[in-house]
Amino acid sequence: MEQIPYREQLLANEKVFRDPVHDYIHVQHQVILDLINTKEVQRLRRIKQLGTTNITFHGAEHSRFTHSLGVYEITRRICDRFLRSYSIADLGEDGWDDQERLVALCAALLHDVGHGPYSHTFEHIFQTNHEAITVEILTSPETEVCQVLSRVSADFPEKVASVIQKTYPNQQVVQLISSQIDADRMDYLLRDAYYTGVNYGTFDLTRILRVIRPYKDGITFQYSGMHAVEDYIVSRYQMYMQVYFHPVTRSAEVILDHLLMRAKELYEDVDYQFLTLPTLLIPFLEHDFTLNDYLMLDDGVLNTYFTMWRLEEDAILSDLAQRFLDRHLFKSVAFNAEIDLETIKKLKTIVQNYGYHVDYYTAINNSYDLPYDLYRPEQEKNRTQIELIYPDGSLIELSKASDIVAALTGKGKGDKRFYFPKEILQEKHTKEIDLFEPMLQEFKKYIHNDEIQSLHR
Amino acid sequence: MEQIPYREQLLANEKVFRDPVHDYIHVQHQVILDLINTKEVQRLRRIKQLGTTNITFHGAEHSRFTHSLGVYEITRRICDRFLRSYSIADLGEDGWDDQERLVALCAALLHDVGHGPYSHTFEHIFQTNHEAITVEILTSPETEVCQVLSRVSADFPEKVASVIQKTYPNQQVVQLISSQIDADRMDYLLRDAYYTGVNYGTFDLTRILRVIRPYKDGITFQYSGMHAVEDYIVSRYQMYMQVYFHPVTRSAEVILDHLLMRAKELYEDVDYQFLTLPTLLIPFLEHDFTLNDYLMLDDGVLNTYFTMWRLEEDAILSDLAQRFLDRHLFKSVAFNAEIDLETIKKLKTIVQNYGYHVDYYTAINNSYDLPYDLYRPEQEKNRTQIELIYPDGSLIELSKASDIVAALTGKGKGDKRFYFPKEILQEKHTKEIDLFEPMLQEFKKYIHNDEIQSLHR
Amino acid sequence: MEQIPYREQLLANEKVFRDPVHDYIHVQHQVILDLINTKEVQRLRRIKQLGTTNITFHGAEHSRFTHSLGVYEITRRICDRFLRSYSIADLGEDGWDDQERLVALCAALLHDVGHGPYSHTFEHIFQTNHEAITVEILTSPETEVCQVLSRVSADFPEKVASVIQKTYPNQQVVQLISSQIDADRMDYLLRDAYYTGVNYGTFDLTRILRVIRPYKDGITFQYSGMHAVEDYIVSRYQMYMQVYFHPVTRSAEVILDHLLMRAKELYEDVDYQFLTLPTLLIPFLEHDFTLNDYLMLDDGVLNTYFTMWRLEEDAILSDLAQRFLDRHLFKSVAFNAEIDLETIKKLKTIVQNYGYHVDYYTAINNSYDLPYDLYRPEQEKNRTQIELIYPDGSLIELSKASDIVAALTGKGKGDKRFYFPKEILQEKHTKEIDLFEPMLQEFKKYIHNDEIQSLHR
Amino acid sequence: MEQIPYREQLLANEKVFRDPVHDYIHVQHQVILDLINTKEVQRLRRIKQLGTTNITFHGAEHSRFTHSLGVYEITRRICDRFLRSYSIADLGEDGWDDQERLVALCAALLHDVGHGPYSHTFEHIFQTNHEAITVEILTSPETEVCQVLSRVSADFPEKVASVIQKTYPNQQVVQLISSQIDADRMDYLLRDAYYTGVNYGTFDLTRILRVIRPYKDGITFQYSGMHAVEDYIVSRYQMYMQVYFHPVTRSAEVILDHLLMRAKELYEDVDYQFLTLPTLLIPFLEHDFTLNDYLMLDDGVLNTYFTMWRLEEDAILSDLAQRFLDRHLFKSVAFNAEIDLETIKKLKTIVQNYGYHVDYYTAINNSYDLPYDLYRPEQEKNRTQIELIYPDGSLIELSKASDIVAALTGKGKGDKRFYFPKEILQEKHTKEIDLFEPMLQEFKKYIHNDEIQSLHR
Repeated sequence: MEQIPYREQLLANEKVFRDPVHDYIHVQHQVILDLINTKEVQRLRRIKQLGTTNITFHGAEHSRFTHSLGVYEITRRICDRFLRSYSIADLGEDGWDDQERLVALCAALLHDVGHGPYSHTFEHIFQTNHEAITVEILTSPETEVCQVLSRVSADFPEKVASVIQKTYPNQQVVQLISSQIDADRMDYLLRDAYYTGVNYGTFDLTRILRVIRPYKDGITFQYSGMHAVEDYIVSRYQMYMQVYFHPVTRSAEVILDHLLMRAKELYEDVDYQFLTLPTLLIPFLEHDFTLNDYLMLDDGVLNTYFTMWRLEEDAILSDLAQRFLDRHLFKSVAFNAEIDLETIKKLKTIVQNYGYHVDYYTAINNSYDLPYDLYRPEQEKNRTQIELIYPDGSLIELSKASDIVAALTGKGKGDKRFYFPKEILQEKHTKEIDLFEPMLQEFKKYIHNDEIQSLHR
Repeated sequence: MEQIPYREQLLANEKVFRDPVHDYIHVQHQVILDLINTKEVQRLRRIKQLGTTNITFHGAEHSRFTHSLGVYEITRRICDRFLRSYSIADLGEDGWDDQERLVALCAALLHDVGHGPYSHTFEHIFQTNHEAITVEILTSPETEVCQVLSRVSADFPEKVASVIQKTYPNQQVVQLISSQIDADRMDYLLRDAYYTGVNYGTFDLTRILRVIRPYKDGITFQYSGMHAVEDYIVSRYQMYMQVYFHPVTRSAEVILDHLLMRAKELYEDVDYQFLTLPTLLIPFLEHDFTLNDYLMLDDGVLNTYFTMWRLEEDAILSDLAQRFLDRHLFKSVAFNAEIDLETIKKLKTIVQNYGYHVDYYTAINNSYDLPYDLYRPEQEKNRTQIELIYPDGSLIELSKASDIVAALTGKGKGDKRFYFPKEILQEKHTKEIDLFEPMLQEFKKYIHNDEIQSLHR
Repeated sequence: MEQIPYREQLLANEKVFRDPVHDYIHVQHQVILDLINTKEVQRLRRIKQLGTTNITFHGAEHSRFTHSLGVYEITRRICDRFLRSYSIADLGEDGWDDQERLVALCAALLHDVGHGPYSHTFEHIFQTNHEAITVEILTSPETEVCQVLSRVSADFPEKVASVIQKTYPNQQVVQLISSQIDADRMDYLLRDAYYTGVNYGTFDLTRILRVIRPYKDGITFQYSGMHAVEDYIVSRYQMYMQVYFHPVTRSAEVILDHLLMRAKELYEDVDYQFLTLPTLLIPFLEHDFTLNDYLMLDDGVLNTYFTMWRLEEDAILSDLAQRFLDRHLFKSVAFNAEIDLETIKKLKTIVQNYGYHVDYYTAINNSYDLPYDLYRPEQEKNRTQIELIYPDGSLIELSKASDIVAALTGKGKGDKRFYFPKEILQEKHTKEIDLFEPMLQEFKKYIHNDEIQSLHR
Repeated sequence: MEQIPYREQLLANEKVFRDPVHDYIHVQHQVILDLINTKEVQRLRRIKQLGTTNITFHGAEHSRFTHSLGVYEITRRICDRFLRSYSIADLGEDGWDDQERLVALCAALLHDVGHGPYSHTFEHIFQTNHEAITVEILTSPETEVCQVLSRVSADFPEKVASVIQKTYPNQQVVQLISSQIDADRMDYLLRDAYYTGVNYGTFDLTRILRVIRPYKDGITFQYSGMHAVEDYIVSRYQMYMQVYFHPVTRSAEVILDHLLMRAKELYEDVDYQFLTLPTLLIPFLEHDFTLNDYLMLDDGVLNTYFTMWRLEEDAILSDLAQRFLDRHLFKSVAFNAEIDLETIKKLKTIVQNYGYHVDYYTAINNSYDLPYDLYRPEQEKNRTQIELIYPDGSLIELSKASDIVAALTGKGKGDKRFYFPKEILQEKHTKEIDLFEPMLQEFKKYIHNDEIQSLHR
């Protein structure tokens, strides 16, 4: 009955989804609507975009689903712009080939489909990799996503996957989805800013969409839009410093990490019996899971086990579960490169003297980001630098045009912190005061202006 | 060590939480901070404010926790305003007694603490009542909330509870938290509008906070602010019509309702064995649950069981679970009072002929709201009407001052819909076409302009 | 050299103007850019959109130029939508004929080009008519606007003018520019709301642009968008009540009216000599002005004469000029239909006894608006009612679908006020207190709750 | 009758002005209300905040009046914050002395009262100085402003003036009004961003108001707010680069400058007779003006003369007047330090060969800003650097804490441009084409990527 090939089937009436960031998400292809309705994509509704960030910024409860729609929508707008102003018909091979639209839209929508609950921590404990899983979801015949993609053409799943893997021949498409200024980052900065309620993350998307253009094997920006691109880099930097690296959020991550670690150890401990077995986690605790096992997980599943673990006999497991769920977090102090391990060890010893198991109740946590970097061919994992294009077609790399970007280029930004139970600093203990007072005083000697200081200096 | 009574302990530095709707939530009392950190309040982070609405408006994934903070913040601002402009010192007994502040703030923060996952549906199936549970949480010595409240004074838990129950003697406090224009409604309209991305719900909060004032045993608004109050009523009405009553959202609710109903029936069916028992739901399936059982539930717990139920043998249970999780919803058509039950029955028969169990695959769903009403002493459940105050102190009821409000007063607004599997309307069946075509045609005869029409007329 | 006809010349690169309300104004036709650059359109930069409203809402200093661009932009977006979804190719004669685009865009941009400074008052005193002048500007060969339009075709100026006059054959075009819900009103509500800083005027423009459609000889809206249209009517109503009819704004208008009236009388008085003659106003004072005379006027010109009139010998002229420029306004009290002329006369007498000339220092000012009305064929000046269209193509008039709109339909809304010098109510007079006190007390007897009350009742 | 001293008189009801940037401006002191109602402050309504910027960003039509209210409001909020958290009662002499509130509020409201129309250009041509005039307005007994201030105390006008002059003893007050991050700059960045519709200028005012604090003889910011301050510096920088230095805006300024210069020359030319004398400008053309002469000027007065000058016989005067009013601007090309004067001279010669008088039809225009600088005691005009304060009270200068700020510190940012009639570049001349073609080609040889390039290289 289908006369129009599936890849070209447009909806009789464009379907829209109301979106607080982009006003509306416009869906025009049957393929895209079918992908949105797959169980793998719908599952993203149950995974928060920002993991534990809502512990700090309570508004940030949005899911990876909303972000995926947003990346799709930005990509769609860019394709429209490219088609209107830089079509291959006008510019020849430097131009945009609109035949690529569907592969770009699918890659945009699906780029995060392999994410699991609390990805960062989960991957650390269970050695999973969300990018590899994304590719698996796209190309495994048992997934609904793969089934929809296969209806376009037999090689379409591989094509979309190769965009995610950055090996797709048309690098314009690859850079739209993944580069230092891509649809993914543009959506998450704006979306995370909207939901947290901060305005560091806002930049001028409309203007960027006016100056972005395809160019040979990549994406460039008109020189006249330099300040809009500069502002995007600054917004990105500020969101990392202010939101993504927030010490309180990382405290929740530390506790989550220790909690899952403890569960794993107890599971491997033949002497320990769980009151209720965490059924859906067992394949991961056993290091033997299928894609289907993975797709059954989401934030709610993990939290459900944490809720149950509150009742477990193991004091550490139940305490950490409770801390995570009830937001009884660790406190932290920053420290810099000059602080030697001895100092940290001493702090740990004090914490231990309070009766805490230091493996579970203290942690070093480093945040790190490289706000922008040049292409460095000598390095293994190098980046595609951002280039601006002059009216005459010549290019200039962004940090050469912007002092602000130059100041951030190639410089890793991070924040090292030592985490410990905040109960230590509370002086409310009445009876125990004699006992703990000297320990507290010693601990405090090491802390100045919320930073660890070396006593040797 | 505590010299200042607990109820008067102010934080050395006001603590703020960034909020996208109110910019910042300002916490000044130790009591409030301690309440926020209880496990009962933190649990609200895991319960979405709008249940299934995010199925339609994907951005609306915010929790009851953010709303609770918002209601607290609006109440705090109103108390500040009342203290500044209408203190009992200035106005005598018509004025605001700022001694009431703490009870008002606590009631505001805690008014929804008894909500469970997908409240509306859950209460329907399991006969729970979130208001009764709120009162129980506030007054049961085993809860952290009650323990914090008790530190203020022995009778403080009961006091706060009586505000929720509307029996608190000072009706100014009661109306702040619960009336036709209260801190609760003001926050949820603004918040739901922000997160859905619609702008029907926005009204001029700043202006309303400027014209609200205490008056005798209640709350009034300066006459000069009439249009701001009018606009609030219209916003409220529009949010109900456009967002809360959205047919797609109700479709998800219908499926959820049938899903839980089916689970209950299977649980009661001695012949059926669940692959995995829904441990945390058992007390509810057994009609014998404690407060503690209730407090272990949240959206994630329910969704976790739904994820598991996908694998259950019972075809209806697993299909409904999948429909709910993957957003394969029922379609609906509206119908009005003129449609008789015969017509509905005929439609059900057609659905049954397709092979669907009508108890699970069709539903009648009514939405209903009364946007505004007068005080009607003759009725059992009457409302406190909104009154405006003239410069000379005389009052006028809102609908007498506003034609728009008059048009909405006392008129219930609703939408009756018939739900059925949307697969029925899809004409893609190729082989079966001969079989189903006549049924489809008959079904369609009853539907016109997305409404059911009677064929008798 | 021109090979492409002027009407079809598109700019090589779309030109954009940053706009706070619509983000960007997109100009694609050479004709539109040339029109924007005419002196008649540029002159609108020097005429405030809201006359004296910025006296009350200080932010509202925007000009008719920004509004004209906005109306153009909304019209452009509607044309795009119509072309995409309702082209004549798809719908036959009920559809949109995109050949009409240029006439629609020009009419949108130019619809207000005949406005002068403080139009309402100026027209009252000098018997001018901005609509007639708009038509004159469009069709007089000496204007740059007419010259640009004539390059499209010899009859193009007349065509555009006939849209303004509502006699253009294609009523779809006419209703886009001028009906109860048109591009003009949509822009000014949003723009005035933005610049005043109130949010009564905001409604969901994006949604309205999604549901608007051409239909036979007019414009309709999809039934599914009913609430968005309803919200627009409410916004419009609220802006009239809250902003456009604000008593303080009207006070400035009253003073302006009396000031110009006084100037006219003095000019006609052979015994009075102006220190400086208001050169550019003379043609109007002489009742003999050309289009060119009119086009030399703007807000600044009038204000310049007012600045000079402060120094004039005539005490009334200089006092009123000063009051207008320095915002020393009259106070006002409302009164309703029950107040008889006797009461007003008595109030005037008291004002006169204070030494004020009642013709210049008191005024009755009525504001009046009809928020929405049905088409009433029996009336001379009837309106094109708003109609909603069902999926089957049948229509329903808006007030039949919306209780709120029904409540506003056909009901004129107004506010009658009596203006007088506010010095009367100030009790600061120390020495004169004995003198004025009885007069003040009598005056006050008539005022209750900021309204005039009859003493006879 | 006055028993409460004037300086302490608070309004019975706080008066508010609706403001789109700050929501409401709150006026509490009678003094402030009286100042707002003076003719000198009301005159600021007739002077645009951004001079010719609305030529480029059409929305930016806001006046210095709205900005003055905004600076007042920010100052008021800071005083409230200081009083609440850093009162002299709590902190001793490092704290905030709330006795200073009124002088701070008055200085904030009045800091720009001496501005005239198109200040920058006007001052250049007529050698006026708005800061000196501000001080004169504050301290001259004939002004209404001085009369109001004098009612507070005899020395109050001088006090407020000394804040403007930065000589006031309490440097906390001085820095609130005038430093690298003061209430003035904070308001104009936010306000100009709002009215232009760009979002470069937005930064997190609420957060800055949370971290600002008094400290010894100045203002500091809590270290925890570093990124908010950093973001403010970036916003400031971006607004200069993108809005304030916009080449099209400067083109209007160039034309205005030449227009006033030409008028001055013609006035001094005994052989030239103006058709209409620009009465209100004569004192300035005569180099002999009083404060009162100055206060009669505003944008409208100047524009009125320009409107008249369109009809003047002098071709240059009338042409420049028309160009300014009708937005027929000069085009520009950038050039850098490497371009020698010879090249510029050659370009001028070409322009001259087209028949243009180079003094009036070409210009070099430099924009220049120093986004942030350290205190440099060796310099004459040094700046008060921004300092952050650690919990222990130690300070760190901003650029030491922020790489981004460091990148902007001490580096002047500018843009040199050559302006010329854009008609030169239009190739529409049909007959003259033979004549002008070689000149055009030569001109174009010097221009590359919209910059002048040296042909010698």
